[in-house]
Amino acid sequence: MGTQGFRFVVEKRCEDSWARTGVLGTPHGEIRTPVFAPVGTQATVKTMAPRELKELGVSLIVANTYHLYLRPGVEIVAEMGGLHSLMGWDGPILTDSGGFQVFSMEHLREVDEDGVTFRSHIDGSEHRLTPEKSIAVQEQLGADLVVALDVCPPYPSDREYNRVALDRTHLWAERCLKAQTRHDQLMFGVVQGGTYPDLREEGARYVASLDFPGIAIGGLSVGEPKELMHNMLDVTIPLLPEDKPRHLLGVGSPEDLFECVARGIDIFDCALPTRVARNGTFFTPQGRLNIRNAEYRDDSGPVMEGCSCYTCLTFSRAYLRHLVIAKEILGLHLATLHNLHFMIQLMRAIRTAIEEGSYARLREQFLGGYRTADYDAAKRDRRAWVGKLRDSGGVGND
Amino acid sequence: MGTQGFRFVVEKRCEDSWARTGVLGTPHGEIRTPVFAPVGTQATVKTMAPRELKELGVSLIVANTYHLYLRPGVEIVAEMGGLHSLMGWDGPILTDSGGFQVFSMEHLREVDEDGVTFRSHIDGSEHRLTPEKSIAVQEQLGADLVVALDVCPPYPSDREYNRVALDRTHLWAERCLKAQTRHDQLMFGVVQGGTYPDLREEGARYVASLDFPGIAIGGLSVGEPKELMHNMLDVTIPLLPEDKPRHLLGVGSPEDLFECVARGIDIFDCALPTRVARNGTFFTPQGRLNIRNAEYRDDSGPVMEGCSCYTCLTFSRAYLRHLVIAKEILGLHLATLHNLHFMIQLMRAIRTAIEEGSYARLREQFLGGYRTADYDAAKRDRRAWVGKLRDSGGVGND
Repeated sequence: MGTQGFRFVVEKRCEDSWARTGVLGTPHGEIRTPVFAPVGTQATVKTMAPRELKELGVSLIVANTYHLYLRPGVEIVAEMGGLHSLMGWDGPILTDSGGFQVFSMEHLREVDEDGVTFRSHIDGSEHRLTPEKSIAVQEQLGADLVVALDVCPPYPSDREYNRVALDRTHLWAERCLKAQTRHDQLMFGVVQGGTYPDLREEGARYVASLDFPGIAIGGLSVGEPKELMHNMLDVTIPLLPEDKPRHLLGVGSPEDLFECVARGIDIFDCALPTRVARNGTFFTPQGRLNIRNAEYRDDSGPVMEGCSCYTCLTFSRAYLRHLVIAKEILGLHLATLHNLHFMIQLMRAIRTAIEEGSYARLREQFLGGYRTADYDAAKRDRRAWVGKLRDSGGVGND
Repeated sequence: MGTQGFRFVVEKRCEDSWARTGVLGTPHGEIRTPVFAPVGTQATVKTMAPRELKELGVSLIVANTYHLYLRPGVEIVAEMGGLHSLMGWDGPILTDSGGFQVFSMEHLREVDEDGVTFRSHIDGSEHRLTPEKSIAVQEQLGADLVVALDVCPPYPSDREYNRVALDRTHLWAERCLKAQTRHDQLMFGVVQGGTYPDLREEGARYVASLDFPGIAIGGLSVGEPKELMHNMLDVTIPLLPEDKPRHLLGVGSPEDLFECVARGIDIFDCALPTRVARNGTFFTPQGRLNIRNAEYRDDSGPVMEGCSCYTCLTFSRAYLRHLVIAKEILGLHLATLHNLHFMIQLMRAIRTAIEEGSYARLREQFLGGYRTADYDAAKRDRRAWVGKLRDSGGVGND
């Protein structure tokens, strides 16, 4: 790769799908793939101390460049010795490019060929994000994995919009590669193309042709139906090199892990498990459980039978419901802990199944028993969340 | 004492003050006194998991009967096997009588000879608290230590008010003793008397004459100057039996521990360390440190040099400031953890000093180096807190 301290090895391939296991070595330790990375937008996975993340077996954290650039400020992070040192996490970290947040602030930004001018959601101050700036900031933050600045169109958006965005994404990708001065960070180029199969193919070919040691797929799970996301992966993945890790940005739910691992994704990051936890929603093999429901008022059982997390081993549904209803912080923490444990264990089971040749069976079994939050409900969730962010002047991700 | 599973032994007495060490054995383990108990109003010490409290060496938790009676409801707690089982804490617990909260809700309650009628701060529903009811509820909650229902006058209040309140407190004390049916709970009678030395003496004599295995001192630290609180202890303590544990309700700050241990107090409980933590205030041997101050923006040192808590061993002032400014829950948690560690370690040092005959020196040394939050600032703090509670329709304690 030409990048120091990294290696990526595909270890085992599934015979029934494009699923694969591998190891991504980084200067801060090995990541066994496929992997789920919790999101720690402001240099903290909300409610979780780093020692608790370690205990859960978390092997990669994602932090958001946009947020950290504004607060505490990239100079502060650099002065504190970088993100790892700042947040007391000595495992691998990935930072995104900052683009997703900036593009989501429709009324606060202006895009041109060279970059984006935007206003801070915190104090309204004006800032400029260019490919070079994104890489410079990510170099100061000091994560192990970094992402090239791309243009992320909303869903739905027309073909012309996506055409322009894709061209710009490719120009910026090359500028990002040129801008890199640190060689101890592994950079992901980003495949865009909206929901247009031919644009996705073009994006995949272009990014694969550049010298990126990792490939990210962006612009999905932004409101489009799941089938459309799967179709886009189906056209993208075959065009990507086998020997580079593939990161599906901002995905996903438990069911997404199964569907997208089957389509050849190695790395996932998503704020969903931690975000819904803070609303009292717990993941179980049967689907999401909302602990606020009155039926749990006097339920002495654990949230999830057989779960080995601290929350399930120690507390009843009745107590967790009490904490959430009484707005106690401990409730948010214990729900977050459980959901992350659930995701990490799920990914562990997925890796084992791929290794043992039983992935197709596991996938069928899980998806057969798991009642997914339906499309409309998921869209409502998302709308409520985005609305809340707007009300508070905040910007994603976690 | 006639109470099963308990013993209280005074082990060592200070030669320069009334300070003493002892052991209070309970059905859920031993408490080495003097002891500081964190407050877990709603059956959770805010932001802290029970395993973290264990790790800190917490040996007693206080929970609030008023709050638990209303939410989740005493029947739910009983159905879940009592407070210990509900909250996953197998160490000793004390519940208060519910009186302090009810009396603090001036516009929502009406007192008569027999008890208090009040409205829930949550849903406005009407309830009745009598001595018998308080004990019945505390028996259902199932704490190790329980407190008789008293009348707690505000500060300032006139002599006549305190006269009536004291008589009523004594009548209710006897009714509480009579109402007790469980013999695995140790009951504290409460000494009242406001800031009137003769009433305090009368209260002390009366409560000491009854068959309470523990003595609590109430109605202090409710807004009066510190000297007045100390004076009240000076007249009260000599009238109390030597062989019963003494609990100073709702106190105190680090400086209070030193002053009141010297006056013969064995048990303290206070929400201050956890409450101010959630405002970004950390205790240090030099006084309170507000992490929001701009000077900590790029301070890479720990909050407290030489502190062995997880927070200080792992994170810089700059990071903790970032978390608090960015309203991250982890910041509230890490501050709470540090402050509780500080209080527990301080009490440990106090016990050791009493044992080694160096308490007077430790007290002088600590109070010499510790800049106390001055009286006016403390009063402002308190007002702001009470105001916030009123705004949110909430009622103390933590």
